[in-house]
Amino acid sequence: MKKALVLFSGGLDSTTALYWAKSKFSQIWALTIDYGQRHRLEIEFAQKICRQLGLQQKIFRVDLTQFGGSTLTDLNQELPQYHHVEEIQSGVPSTYVPFRNGIFLSLAAAWGEVLGIEAIICGFNTIDSPNYPDTRSSFVQAMEKAIQEGTKVGQAGQNIKILAPFVDLKKSEIIQTGLALGADYSYSLSCYSGQEVPCQKCAACLLRAQAWSEIGQEDHLITRLKKEGKIKN
Amino acid sequence: MKKALVLFSGGLDSTTALYWAKSKFSQIWALTIDYGQRHRLEIEFAQKICRQLGLQQKIFRVDLTQFGGSTLTDLNQELPQYHHVEEIQSGVPSTYVPFRNGIFLSLAAAWGEVLGIEAIICGFNTIDSPNYPDTRSSFVQAMEKAIQEGTKVGQAGQNIKILAPFVDLKKSEIIQTGLALGADYSYSLSCYSGQEVPCQKCAACLLRAQAWSEIGQEDHLITRLKKEGKIKN
Repeated sequence: MKKALVLFSGGLDSTTALYWAKSKFSQIWALTIDYGQRHRLEIEFAQKICRQLGLQQKIFRVDLTQFGGSTLTDLNQELPQYHHVEEIQSGVPSTYVPFRNGIFLSLAAAWGEVLGIEAIICGFNTIDSPNYPDTRSSFVQAMEKAIQEGTKVGQAGQNIKILAPFVDLKKSEIIQTGLALGADYSYSLSCYSGQEVPCQKCAACLLRAQAWSEIGQEDHLITRLKKEGKIKN
Repeated sequence: MKKALVLFSGGLDSTTALYWAKSKFSQIWALTIDYGQRHRLEIEFAQKICRQLGLQQKIFRVDLTQFGGSTLTDLNQELPQYHHVEEIQSGVPSTYVPFRNGIFLSLAAAWGEVLGIEAIICGFNTIDSPNYPDTRSSFVQAMEKAIQEGTKVGQAGQNIKILAPFVDLKKSEIIQTGLALGADYSYSLSCYSGQEVPCQKCAACLLRAQAWSEIGQEDHLITRLKKEGKIKN
């Protein structure tokens, strides 16, 4: 009985991680964090995806707006907007939420230790994603070590692994991985703006659009929104 | 301007950490976590201590009762009780809260990055404390590395240090350190039961009583409770 916990935001990468985990583990749980993100709609859609797949999910509230320091959690700051993917700067963007994935992985380790999981699965990727320090392999390895040192199971030699299988994949390869596993992306949201219809101006929208374009398919989300008349054909 | 954040529960060790940090840094903030601990009274007293010292404090809510797995957060489980310090077992006790300090340090790193701190100060100790994996030096080092890898400041070479100055001190030495710094322990609580008057049966009470006994003084808390008529002389 191999058990795993998936950090599941409802976005494209973590939706793929959910399908990937389903294919590798016999029992999985989804942990979705309500941290005060401006794109809170992703939580509602994450619940829909879990219900469709019959997965156990916990929505956990940790209010990071109290710390601020990010355009994703501070509504008084404006989201950066772009016209082309090439404009996305190489530095750490203002959408970086301070040590967000450190907090998320710590919460996952805590719940995971109680559940008796072997691994935490996450959809982190670094190739054509914004430059977030807390998605890189070196961070994942350091957190795995911290979880080993700081948990009862880790000290008993049954360390919880952190698997980030897409960390070195391009986003188009992540989508292709998901498609091969039967993933349905029609309810996966990426847009930072908090709207169901993608703004097509934020970094998340542009990188997602580029990835679907690279594989020569229409984004499942766009297809659904057209069908529902929410965007024009 | 040296800035630091203190993980401040309101207990004896973190109260000492607060005084220690005040003596070393020019600006400090206290982070107190309301995680659903059965001894929630410590939060109210932690606020009193911060007000007395004129310190900025944030009470941050993260409900770890949703994960359970600990007699400190699950009221359906009974706290272990002892008659003597020697009865406290060497294994990880049922009061261990899964990866609690990993979560706390992650939250401290997040807020600390926004505040621009140099260090997180914590009162962890391992000598005559319950055997918690998430208080040991190797854990602290691993978390510091994870924070370095996963934060914008860490990647810019301004890593946030985690200082646990008492990790190898006996509890009596921690108290003596605090007394030399003028610490007032009359409102610092340790008892797991959640009462202001110590139960004298839980591990926290027994270890604290032993420490004060070793230095040959009456616990400030006991002195205050006697003065207020809450316990008999």
